[in-house]
Amino acid sequence: MQLIFDDSYFMRKALQEAELAFEKGEIPVGVVVVIDNRIIARGHNLTEMLHDVTAHAEMQAITAAANFLGGKYLKDCTMYVTLEPCQMCAGALYWSQLSKLVFAATDHERGYRKMGTKLHPKTKVTSGIMEEETSSLLKRFFIEKRNLN
Amino acid sequence: MQLIFDDSYFMRKALQEAELAFEKGEIPVGVVVVIDNRIIARGHNLTEMLHDVTAHAEMQAITAAANFLGGKYLKDCTMYVTLEPCQMCAGALYWSQLSKLVFAATDHERGYRKMGTKLHPKTKVTSGIMEEETSSLLKRFFIEKRNLN
Repeated sequence: MQLIFDDSYFMRKALQEAELAFEKGEIPVGVVVVIDNRIIARGHNLTEMLHDVTAHAEMQAITAAANFLGGKYLKDCTMYVTLEPCQMCAGALYWSQLSKLVFAATDHERGYRKMGTKLHPKTKVTSGIMEEETSSLLKRFFIEKRNLN
Repeated sequence: MQLIFDDSYFMRKALQEAELAFEKGEIPVGVVVVIDNRIIARGHNLTEMLHDVTAHAEMQAITAAANFLGGKYLKDCTMYVTLEPCQMCAGALYWSQLSKLVFAATDHERGYRKMGTKLHPKTKVTSGIMEEETSSLLKRFFIEKRNLN
């Protein structure tokens, strides 16, 4: 039997969201939130378009997932995100009591681990899934941005 | 000459926002954002009503202030908040490059200082303004909540 709904499957969906951000000139970060192998929320970074530092992909997806569930806790949810969350997003995930966080690329400068932000004790973490593809999209974004300026 | 627009003046406005949260059964935290002695955004905690862990007073006020200013940075702004911000809100303030943060009560358990969250290096911090009034509102909230359960 082939395992269709594995971490790579959902990370690919998050990468598709990141590509939507890229097309809009936003730092390409994408997210999906999954419960029982079903995507209940999607999001991509919109900080430039909305002029809003709080419009990270994760923040939008937390709000959307809670709205779908009709409650503020994401206890049985897995979040797939293409880049390691920042202090703000990890802080929001702390409150949400997320069950599992899967992220692709590490943010060596402003990632929550470097910054010392605490997730909820119940949140399990997996990292490095599709790191190459998601990092390469981010690198392409910053190279193109530099060439435009 | 009497200094009308001092920190206590604006913290009192933030406390009025906290009282609105109290009346709605929300943990009573209130915020105002000020630029040139003018309030450009207000907010109070709405996490229960919106079923949304991201609906802290500060997060709403950051979005509202940026919307008012037409840009995502709050470089010339002062935020007055009745309780020390959490990891999430401090993380959002980090991105906003807020000029000055004034908070009243210390959150000894989940405040950003206890949690080790970093504000932007340019953000100045003042604390303890009207600590007694804001703490007393929080205590009253938790006592009433306990008695209802």
